[in-house]
Parts: sequence; structure tokens; C-alpha cells
Amino acid sequence: MKPYIHNIKFYETDKMSITHHSNYIRWMEEARIDYLMKAGCDYRFLEEEDISSPVVSVNGKFLKATSFGEDIEIYVTVKKFNGVKLEVKYEMKRGDETVFKGESCHCFVKGKKMKVVNLKKEMPNYYKRLVEFSGRQTD
Amino acid sequence: MKPYIHNIKFYETDKMSITHHSNYIRWMEEARIDYLMKAGCDYRFLEEEDISSPVVSVNGKFLKATSFGEDIEIYVTVKKFNGVKLEVKYEMKRGDETVFKGESCHCFVKGKKMKVVNLKKEMPNYYKRLVEFSGRQTD
Amino acid sequence: MKPYIHNIKFYETDKMSITHHSNYIRWMEEARIDYLMKAGCDYRFLEEEDISSPVVSVNGKFLKATSFGEDIEIYVTVKKFNGVKLEVKYEMKRGDETVFKGESCHCFVKGKKMKVVNLKKEMPNYYKRLVEFSGRQTD
Amino acid sequence: MKPYIHNIKFYETDKMSITHHSNYIRWMEEARIDYLMKAGCDYRFLEEEDISSPVVSVNGKFLKATSFGEDIEIYVTVKKFNGVKLEVKYEMKRGDETVFKGESCHCFVKGKKMKVVNLKKEMPNYYKRLVEFSGRQTD
Repeated sequence: MKPYIHNIKFYETDKMSITHHSNYIRWMEEARIDYLMKAGCDYRFLEEEDISSPVVSVNGKFLKATSFGEDIEIYVTVKKFNGVKLEVKYEMKRGDETVFKGESCHCFVKGKKMKVVNLKKEMPNYYKRLVEFSGRQTD
Repeated sequence: MKPYIHNIKFYETDKMSITHHSNYIRWMEEARIDYLMKAGCDYRFLEEEDISSPVVSVNGKFLKATSFGEDIEIYVTVKKFNGVKLEVKYEMKRGDETVFKGESCHCFVKGKKMKVVNLKKEMPNYYKRLVEFSGRQTD
Repeated sequence: MKPYIHNIKFYETDKMSITHHSNYIRWMEEARIDYLMKAGCDYRFLEEEDISSPVVSVNGKFLKATSFGEDIEIYVTVKKFNGVKLEVKYEMKRGDETVFKGESCHCFVKGKKMKVVNLKKEMPNYYKRLVEFSGRQTD
Repeated sequence: MKPYIHNIKFYETDKMSITHHSNYIRWMEEARIDYLMKAGCDYRFLEEEDISSPVVSVNGKFLKATSFGEDIEIYVTVKKFNGVKLEVKYEMKRGDETVFKGESCHCFVKGKKMKVVNLKKEMPNYYKRLVEFSGRQTD
């Protein structure tokens, strides 16, 4: 699959002249939402059902410093998805060089009270599309 | 009135080694919310009535560069408040030096459809407290 | 000229469910840097000469609320450029609708001491390219 | 030791009406810099020697959603510090409730080329103060 590309913005740098590390966490979100879109699982379909997908945990390794103007290719893989939990892996590359590796874990919640839901029951077609798409990607 | 103080964060700097200019717009918000709190007009009282206060316009002059670790004193003045429109002025100082001057203008809207409301009618006590407090400050 | 397009990120929204206003200031920067690139005036050419271009002033009018997932077309025009001062205008559109209008003003400074310089003298070719490109755009 | 307190800003929320998760990574930085300050190890002392401290890795668990206006107490512990590597743990609480747990790992680099250095040799007094302070905190 073609990676998601993020071009590093000037406002994403800090006084060390490199990208501030918090931005990689934001790029993970950008790339994840792009992946869902490509799977036919637009995040806004969840929102239409009053469902959202909070981040449960996150981790990242900063392997190389990056900076303003560089294009970062972000490769997304779904490690696990069972309708209740979504685990995603990210590899970010600048040319041939891996600059960042990370993972995030998500659940799905409904309404203002943020009740945990199972997408297999709540949105079976969305669930199915994501299972099939992510299955094809990891083959 | 005692100013609101913002201590500049490392992540607010950019590769010019100074504060990224977009952050002053955020500090205006911090200082405005603090001002409302001091007036007995906690922003969350608006939220409890499903009212919010979007920014209609903003302007700023960046007079001196600032950077990480500096304490910025933010002086807030209400220029105009009639229940429909709120105009606020900001002066930011580092010691004796003025580093930024800005203004923002706000309206008040209710519900998801963001219908414009008059706080004089919708929340008369909130309106009154803010009129009285801002009147005292400008004396 | 083709506009710069910014697709609104989830992390750019706030609890009013709309784009936080400070992000438009950042998009102005993105679009300005893209404009300079198209003019053959990559911002990094300035950096190679130890020159940077701080924001002197900024203003914006928020005409329509925007939110996550929307594509915003940003039209950039150079209002004035004389080598010492750069004034830029921005119009942001969602489809046919103008959602934001803004302006920024910049100077050029050299070195850590941020000494003001005239690009006409310091980088005559850069100056010339930008004058010519911006002249063609406003015809 | 008294925790570092972060009052959640409006601009730190997202359209789920909760704090955007990337901000916790920024608060870790705020609290770490505050900890160093209390240890007599102001981050700016490093900068004066042209040394900076990039983040090597980071992880976090988001245990409870938080939002605008809440005070978050951040407890910082140094897990390991040998002059070359700094490992820090964070626990964030809202009242009695733990809302976030995280860790970050840092190295120390000098100059534009970001050459890895050992603070034990480069800044022995800084090293000593941090070892002693962090030793007292974990007793």
C-alpha cells in the first residue's frame, strides 16, 4: 500500500531546529485516519453513529531527527482488530531511512458517557470492511 | 488587576529559537479565560447552558521576540461588551518591555446550530457580572 | 494560480467541534511557504544564508466555522514586497464559501542577533524572483 | 515532592470534548523541565553549553479522559540517570484519580551535529546535582 506522506511544517519544529517529538504522535493520527479512509472506513462514519475512538496507549521510538520541509512516508499496519480493540503500528521513513517507529491502541466508545462498544455489533459493515482491508494489507 | 502569567514552554518555540507566533493567539485565549474566571464568569458557566463563544476576528503585533522559560505577563482589558459582542485587548510584557499587543472579537452562540444569542437575555446574571467587573477594571 | 490545500486534521479541532482558531494562523504559514516554493523562493534558501523571516503582525476574520476532514483552499497574494517588508493576504475557501480572510506582515533578519536586512541587497536573485512571480500573480 | 500542576487549556481539547492525547506528551516535557529546575538543573544551563536533550522514546497509557479547566498534578520520578541516558516516569492525577502514566527516555547531544555526550564528563556539577536530587526523591 502507498504510504501516507506528511510534509514537515515550520511550526512543527522547536528550538533544537528539529521536529518537536509530540508531532509524531499527531502524524500517527493523520496516517491512521488516512488508512481508515482507504479501507472505506472513514472516521466520520463512526462519528455519524455517535461513536468515537479514544487512544488507550501509545509508544514511539525516535530513531533519527527530522526537520522542516522534509517529506515523511508513514507506513501503517493493523496489528489487531476485533471490534473492541484496535492496535496499529507505524513506521516513518525519510527516503530509505527509518526515522520513527510507533504503536497506538484504541477502543470504541458511544455517546457523551463514552460507553465502550463492540463495532462487530454496532457497525458490522464497518467492522467487516476494516477486517478485510487490514487482512489484505498484511498478506 | 494582576496580570495573567504564561511561562513559555519548550514546545512553543520553533527553529528560529523563538516562540512560534501562533502561540500568542493561544495565550490570548488563556488570559481571556482567566479574566472571565476572575470576573465570576467562568467559561464553563456558558458551556453548561450550551453556549459557546467563537472568535470572530483577531489581530496581533509582535514587538519583541520571546523564548523558552520566560515569564510573560498578560494584561487583559474589555474594550466593548454588550451581550452580543465581546471585544478584548491584550498587552503582553516581559518585565518592563511590551512584547505583543493584540485584540480579539467574539460573539455568543447556542447549540449545535450555533445560533447567535444575546447574553443579556440568555444569561442576565453572567452578563451583569461581566459588565460590572470590566467597568471596574477600566476605571 | 492553484491554491494551497489544507485538509483539516482531527487534532486541529476543539471542544466546540470546530477548528481551533489558532490553526488558521498556522495554515497561513503553510500556504505562504508553499507560495514562496512555487515562486522559486524556497524558505530554506533564506535559512542557508542565516536569514529568517519573523512575523511582524497578523490579522484574521473567521467568517464560517470549519471542521475535521474538510479541504480548505488557500489563495495567497503578495500585497507588498520591497526586500525589507513582505505583506501577504490570504483567502481561505471551502468550495464556493469564503471561510477566512487574513493578512500577515514580515521582515527579514540575519544571524542570532536578528539584524534587519534588505533582501534586495542580501539576496538579489531571490528578491528578483519573488518580485517577478508576485507581479505575475496579481495581473 | 510537590507535583507540577498543569491547568488544561481550551485549545488542548478536541472534538471528542476531551484533551487531545498528544498534549500529555507535551505536559511530560513541562513537568520534566520543572523537575530539572527544582533539582538546580535548569534546562537552560545545558543550552548554554550548546547541549540539548532529545527524546529517544516515549510511552503513555491514557487511563481516564480529562478536559478543559481541570488541574492535573504531575508526579515525576527519575528511573535512571547515568550521564548518558535519562529515564523519567510520570504519573498524572486529577484529585485521587490517576489519569495517565508514561515514561520518556533521553540522551544528551552537543552542537549542530548532535554528537552524543556524557554529562558526567561534560557538566560534572550538573550531573552531580541531578543524581543527588533524584536520589533523594526516590527514597
